[in-house]
Order: sequence, then structure tokens, then C-alpha cells
Amino acid sequence: MQQIVECVPNFSEGRRPEVVQKIVDAIAAVKGVSVLDYSSDADHNRSVVTFTAPPETVGDAAFAGIAKAAELIDMTRQSGGHPRMGATDVCPFAPIKGVTMDDCVEIAKALGKRVGDELNIPVYLYEAAAARPERQNLAKVRKGQYEGIRDTIASDPGRAPDFGPARMGSAGAIAIGARPFLIAFNVYLNTDDVEIAKKIGKAVRHSGGGLRFVKGMGLLVDGKAQVSMNLTDFTRTPVFRVVEMIRREAARYGVSIESSELIGLIPQQALIDAAAWYLQLDGFSPEQVLENHLMEA
Amino acid sequence: MQQIVECVPNFSEGRRPEVVQKIVDAIAAVKGVSVLDYSSDADHNRSVVTFTAPPETVGDAAFAGIAKAAELIDMTRQSGGHPRMGATDVCPFAPIKGVTMDDCVEIAKALGKRVGDELNIPVYLYEAAAARPERQNLAKVRKGQYEGIRDTIASDPGRAPDFGPARMGSAGAIAIGARPFLIAFNVYLNTDDVEIAKKIGKAVRHSGGGLRFVKGMGLLVDGKAQVSMNLTDFTRTPVFRVVEMIRREAARYGVSIESSELIGLIPQQALIDAAAWYLQLDGFSPEQVLENHLMEA
Repeated sequence: MQQIVECVPNFSEGRRPEVVQKIVDAIAAVKGVSVLDYSSDADHNRSVVTFTAPPETVGDAAFAGIAKAAELIDMTRQSGGHPRMGATDVCPFAPIKGVTMDDCVEIAKALGKRVGDELNIPVYLYEAAAARPERQNLAKVRKGQYEGIRDTIASDPGRAPDFGPARMGSAGAIAIGARPFLIAFNVYLNTDDVEIAKKIGKAVRHSGGGLRFVKGMGLLVDGKAQVSMNLTDFTRTPVFRVVEMIRREAARYGVSIESSELIGLIPQQALIDAAAWYLQLDGFSPEQVLENHLMEA
Repeated sequence: MQQIVECVPNFSEGRRPEVVQKIVDAIAAVKGVSVLDYSSDADHNRSVVTFTAPPETVGDAAFAGIAKAAELIDMTRQSGGHPRMGATDVCPFAPIKGVTMDDCVEIAKALGKRVGDELNIPVYLYEAAAARPERQNLAKVRKGQYEGIRDTIASDPGRAPDFGPARMGSAGAIAIGARPFLIAFNVYLNTDDVEIAKKIGKAVRHSGGGLRFVKGMGLLVDGKAQVSMNLTDFTRTPVFRVVEMIRREAARYGVSIESSELIGLIPQQALIDAAAWYLQLDGFSPEQVLENHLMEA
């Protein structure tokens, strides 16, 4: 079976395109890498690169990007609107196909050790790869940002990195981890009453008492009420369940779902899960998808 | 974009596995071929081979199978429970990915010409490749079977082949054509009353006044009422519409859909169409499926 891992490193440079290009080139030069997207934000002074690779080389590609960023970005002189602690600020791996979350945790740990040993950069493991429960949350890991961590990393045991030295150089520190694929998904209601979208957003999101892997809020977009969401683990809170919950909540307010939209990419499995649920396809196996069957052959 | 054509030739041999194996081997030896399945029925004295290949080589692979069958199967001595007119009885092509029905019609015509010219086998183009409207229907093309066609092919202008000589040798005649991918799909009701499944089967199938590309009937399977169907063009009569029509009919009789099942393979597109319809995903593009995006890259 084909194996695909996604990696979405964030770099603390969004104003010098030539620097971002060199980082992207270093990643893309590794065998098996497909760079899906990269974009920079000058206000945030930050760039996000999205690429995929097989599990054998995805860590090498991330390492190449991290090494290049350490060479070209000086955190002692960097500033911008987005919280940051390192030249490569975060580096999450997500399972896409034929790999598990555990595989991605292993990839994150192996990369963390290598970044610590070879680049002398302090590494914090986060999310599913976290070695300490309090490091699952990126915001807690990054608290104080570059300057705050630099000043306390040697003295505060709570700041001790998982790999690498307890001191910060010009490349700062990095959070390396594993998390599920993020789906950005919006639902439009047949009303311009944004208050309804806000109520529904609160009802479905985890923080409001709703579904565990949903972040969401209500917005008015092009004159239509929209429930805007990030689905942070579609394998455990599937897209169809979110849609059907919104449908029921909308009916409560006398409105309905007009349409939905997907921002960016979605793994095939998320759509197949939806088809199988609505069609009540019991006993369905992914190998019955003709294209998957061919890939096996 | 990746291009895939499916080909499902039927051979008039279901009792000598060594003959079937030689035919399959001849097909499989052609570049780009994936043999997905083959099965023989001794009573029918017939075998069905399912394979895929890119459009460039799928015709060569079919030709290799047809030539081998003409060499090893003697229609003057063949008998069995299934209607047949040739050693290779039918050879349909179906578009799977990155190819259109028109492409498959062209492949069928090119193969037909070659089979007529090089193997001296009379060829009838059928279904979407038919050159005469009355030849769209395979049953009409094959009427009279091997013996009947052999006796009238030279004298009856209505029997004149589209390619090849107007005389039958020991390989008989062949129907070559293009048609959509067939989906074998069953829906189980939460009742053991087979009469309800029969009524619903009649309501949804084309011949009963129902949906255009549905063949169906009601059966009792493992003590459950089942609507058993062939969906003969999922691009025009999509799976979700069939399911929702059955759901409504079932409610009329006070029962519901308990589950559904897919026999064999289904193109990814049929499932994605269902997901997009139920989730109301307007403006969705197949390139947003991560795996498709990677294949492009």
C-alpha cells in the first residue's frame, strides 16, 4: 500500500521571499517529496510550507528545511505579529495514507533527536508526540516566545528540551510533533442572520461543549451566515457527523444548510467515510475503491 | 492526470482452466495491464476477465486475449448455458479515470478494425460504440447465437459485420463496444417481506418506469428483503439518488434501509459524488482530494 505523510513546517520569515525559496528548495530536493503549497505573511513574518513524502524520507526533508532555516534566519533580530520561538517554529507530521499516528510520532522523535544532536537546537515534542502531558499544547510550549525561553531554558527544569542543548542560539527552539490532518470546512445557512451561525458554531465546537475535534465560529460572509470550522481529527469527529449536527441545530432556528465548502485539501478517506455512512455501506473496504485496488496491484 | 480504461472480455470457455489461464496470461503480458479479477462458470461454459490499462495499451491487451481465445476455443464444438456467438463473445471498454466515453468508443473501433483485418473474425460494434442504432443492444446483436449467425451472416444485410469478413470460422463473431462502469449494489431492508423488496425493485428500475440506468429486482437473502441492482451508468444515475429513492419507497411500506452493500469494485468518483451531494459541497473539485493532488504533482 502507498504510504504518505504530510508535514507542515512553519518558518519565522515572511518578508524575504528569496530566503523562503531557499528553504522550500532544500525540502523539495529530497527524494519522494511533493510540495503542495507554501505561503508567506509579511505582517506575521512567517511562512507555512505544506509537503508530503513517504515515511522513509519525510523526516530527511523536514531536516533539510530546518537546517536551511537555521542558517538563514536570525531569531535575535526577528520580529513579527505571530508568536514564535525558533527559525523553524513548529514542524508537525500528519498521517495521510498507509501510516498511523504512531508512525508519525516515531518520525517526529527521530527528527527531534537528529535536530538536537546535529544542529544543536533545543527541541520540544508536542501534540501526539509530546513526552510530557503539559507539552501537548503548543501555546504552552511556546509561552514566553524566543526571548522568554532563551532566558529561562537553562535554569527552569520545566523548560528542559526533549532533545538538544538547554541553550538557545540564533535559530531558537523548535516544536516537533504529530497531529491529525486538518480539514478547513465551512457551512453556509440560508439566512443573513449571523447570530444563528454564531449560536451553531458555539454548539458544535469542542470549547462550547460540542464535538471533540471541532473548532468553529459564526461569521457573515458575502451576506450569508457561515459556520466556519477546523476539523482537527476527521477520523474521530467525522465530517458527516458535524454536518448533520449543524443541520439539526439550523432546523431549530427555522433555517437550513444551503451549501458547504472545503478550503484546500481533504484526504480521500474523509469523503469515502461520508459516502459509506450516508449510503449505509456496511462491510465496505477501502480496497473496493477501484483506484486503491489498482495501486495495490 | 492518470488515465485508466477498464476492459471486461467474456470468453466462451469455463471448463478448461488451463485454456483460461493462457488467455489471462496473454492479456497480462501487455505493458500497463492490471488483471483485477477473472472467474469461470462451468455450467455457463464461460469466463469473465476484468482488467485495466492505460488507453495506449488496453486495446493491445484485449487483442492479445482475443487472438489467444481464437486459437484455443472452437465454437463448432462449444456448448453451455450462456448465450454466445464467439470464442471471445463480448469485449466492452469502460472509462475509469482521465478518459471519456468517446475515448473508449475510439479504442473499441480501432480494436474492431484490427480484429477484423488481422484475425478475420466478424466484429459487431455495440452499446456506445454501435455504428447502427439497433446494435446498441447486445441481445439483439447476438440473437440466433453462433449457429444462427453463421448461417445468415453472408445472406442477411442486417447481419453484415462492422469489421471483418461476412463469414464465421471456428472463433465465431465478437461484439466489441464501450459502456460505463457497472456498479453491483444491493440494499437490505429491515424486513423479511420479500414482496416489499420486489415492489421497490420494480419502482426504481428503468424497465419498471424508474431510474434510467438501474436494473433491479427484489430477493430474499439470508432472511432479509434485498433490492439487488446493477447501476449501469453512475455518472447519470448516481448511487445516492438510487438510495434516497429506495429510502422513500421503503418508508411508504413502513420499513427502512438497514444497510447496503457493494459487490466488487466502485470508482472513487462514485463515492466522492455521494459525499459531495450529502454534505452539499458546492464548488468541490476532484483536485481537492489530497491523493489526486499528489498524483498530479
